Amino acid sequence: MKGNIFYAQSGGVTPVINATAAGLIDAYLKNKKHFGKFFIGKNGILGALREELIDISKESKSELNLLKKTPGGAFGSCRLKLNDFQKSKEDFERLYIVFKKHNIKYFFYNGGGDSQDTTNKVSKFFKEKNYPIICIGLPKTIDNDLPITDNCPGFGSVAKYIATSTLEASLDVKSMSETSTKIFILEVMGRHAGWLAASAGVIKQVAEDPPHIILFPEIEFKEKVFIKKVEEITNKFGYCVIVASEGIKNSKNQFLCDSGLKDSFGHSQLGGVAPVLSELITNKLKLKVHWAVSDYLQRAARHIGSKVDVDQAYSLGSAGIKYAKKNISDVMLTIKNISSNEKYKWSISHTKLDKVANVEKKLPKNFIKKNGFEITNPCKKYILNLIKGEDYPTYKFGFPRYAKLKCSTITKKLPSYKLK
Amino acid sequence: MKGNIFYAQSGGVTPVINATAAGLIDAYLKNKKHFGKFFIGKNGILGALREELIDISKESKSELNLLKKTPGGAFGSCRLKLNDFQKSKEDFERLYIVFKKHNIKYFFYNGGGDSQDTTNKVSKFFKEKNYPIICIGLPKTIDNDLPITDNCPGFGSVAKYIATSTLEASLDVKSMSETSTKIFILEVMGRHAGWLAASAGVIKQVAEDPPHIILFPEIEFKEKVFIKKVEEITNKFGYCVIVASEGIKNSKNQFLCDSGLKDSFGHSQLGGVAPVLSELITNKLKLKVHWAVSDYLQRAARHIGSKVDVDQAYSLGSAGIKYAKKNISDVMLTIKNISSNEKYKWSISHTKLDKVANVEKKLPKNFIKKNGFEITNPCKKYILNLIKGEDYPTYKFGFPRYAKLKCSTITKKLPSYKLK
Repeated sequence: MKGNIFYAQSGGVTPVINATAAGLIDAYLKNKKHFGKFFIGKNGILGALREELIDISKESKSELNLLKKTPGGAFGSCRLKLNDFQKSKEDFERLYIVFKKHNIKYFFYNGGGDSQDTTNKVSKFFKEKNYPIICIGLPKTIDNDLPITDNCPGFGSVAKYIATSTLEASLDVKSMSETSTKIFILEVMGRHAGWLAASAGVIKQVAEDPPHIILFPEIEFKEKVFIKKVEEITNKFGYCVIVASEGIKNSKNQFLCDSGLKDSFGHSQLGGVAPVLSELITNKLKLKVHWAVSDYLQRAARHIGSKVDVDQAYSLGSAGIKYAKKNISDVMLTIKNISSNEKYKWSISHTKLDKVANVEKKLPKNFIKKNGFEITNPCKKYILNLIKGEDYPTYKFGFPRYAKLKCSTITKKLPSYKLK
Repeated sequence: MKGNIFYAQSGGVTPVINATAAGLIDAYLKNKKHFGKFFIGKNGILGALREELIDISKESKSELNLLKKTPGGAFGSCRLKLNDFQKSKEDFERLYIVFKKHNIKYFFYNGGGDSQDTTNKVSKFFKEKNYPIICIGLPKTIDNDLPITDNCPGFGSVAKYIATSTLEASLDVKSMSETSTKIFILEVMGRHAGWLAASAGVIKQVAEDPPHIILFPEIEFKEKVFIKKVEEITNKFGYCVIVASEGIKNSKNQFLCDSGLKDSFGHSQLGGVAPVLSELITNKLKLKVHWAVSDYLQRAARHIGSKVDVDQAYSLGSAGIKYAKKNISDVMLTIKNISSNEKYKWSISHTKLDKVANVEKKLPKNFIKKNGFEITNPCKKYILNLIKGEDYPTYKFGFPRYAKLKCSTITKKLPSYKLK
């Protein structure tokens, strides 16, 4: 009896995580004779624990065809840390029971750093159990902070959104600046790594071009230096555009805007650094400020997806099936830059899961200019490669027509399980 | 000697105000034998007062060709109220001197309600002076609050952005809702009229579809009713998407964003109704909330321009030249709905400036459902007509290639003028 596949989406979603799912599903359908059924966990690994399994064969073909161009996590994601492997094996035992009952022999987990760690632990546990299963991590994170892979799927599309939005809002504030708003602040995501904030920098060619100031989490925020810079820029060019990472910190290593709330991974929930900066500028310089917090809009902006990003996300999914057919396990698939000249070329590769877990890739030092407010040419080149090309969704009635899946789950075979 | 043209952009800019400029310029170039030069005021009417006139013939053809697809106000806009006509005629006298010196016989002013009022006053003053000039108002406002015209250019594109962004962010929060964020709030523009907030409603077909709650400035915000509704929706569907107009007010007729609420650290809220609502929900319901403030991003989002909107904005510009050739003055051009069946058809018409000044068109009562949180079918139909079709900019290097104009001004002939 051929082994069944289990796939799930984990952590914060991206504009292209569904493209990876689509790549995996499409490759599975082409290689159906090698595999049993294709199950998807409803709400990530939670779907496995709760035995809530979506059978992909029950979904309509036409809706599945829209998956590649649909943002969000179509099957539900989760922020859930399994009980610590060493302390309590309960969750892992449950996974074992569910996977065994449903003859699951392939485990694909699509997520960021925490999720790759989960994949690694699951694999190690199943080895202990002597249960043969192929465990493959599929990368995903708009934060672009996974190690080894040259970049992360999701980042390119969000970077394209941020570059475009910064350019557009800059044209707006520039037109208003003579008699009204002089400062525009855009807050973008990025808790510890400044990749997304950096992406706004690709639109700048000469000194007077926006963004004039990028605030990276890698650089300590110094109020006086910042205010002086804003004043200088505004006096010189008549307006000033600032792109701020949500994760910027002061000299005491405190987030500039810490709401005091924690998410279920124990990370601080951030958001709202733009109004803090706005207040600061208004008080110190008496200038009119507008600010935007793009939050989920940036992370879900599939309408402005990067073609390179979509292609990479989709290919990672397709490659998952290739690796499974070759029985390669305990790896996270990666994107490799194989350019030999100016033209950007990439391919799919892989790395051992052990090497990925709990390593966070920040912006390299040579990607930030010495003044601490701009990106360097190598950084620009790196990002420009990843935002190239447009991949538009189909529109109906004037807004995108995204996949509407049933996501109904199969009949349970096991008693229910209580999560701690 | 043929009369010269003066055109200027005024008030908050839109994704398509430059399309109106492009329509006017293209029609002028085709009808050049009827007119003298084409001047544009740098930073709106301020350009006339300061004698800062941009000569369109000095701009490169290739950049002008990009104007139709470029957001912001390419020649600079202004928020400037002229001194009151009745009390002091200084500003008007200055306009007279500048226009006479530069043989300006056509005055096109592209703006919202305040700007149409300015156009009207300018026209009346020039009549007093016996100076023959054609005064034509070209409408523009994302707020869609001008009277008589069936709709305003700018609104359709921003509505398309809001509908799309709400749909996308909804897919994101829905995927996260099982274990993390359950509420998403999007704040949109609209101080007094709820047209933009309403536009999110077009993506909703059945009760469980987002947006679940729209907060209109036309409806008094009642905290208890709101919180109960959020709880109800979240219990029923697992998540709740809220679109809030920046202009919502409480029972004391105070803007919610100015209502003196404090965040959990006791800091005054820093502007933005979304964080105020977020805090409220967090406190009352202990649910995880994400919020976005799109601010200028919505107003500048030319990358997702509505084709109908762009066509209308451009046609208004072209029509300006037709009206000028026919010597029709003291009018604001309008968009007229001439549909005879289901298919939306429109044409350009006009109205007397006297009828437009200082009238604000709010959402009609029959456009808001009785529950106060949703739009009705007539509203949906109205908005869907205006967001139809995509009109993408050209991309270069992965982000839009927008017009870069020189905007250099001609040599001054007059002594400088001091604004009061």
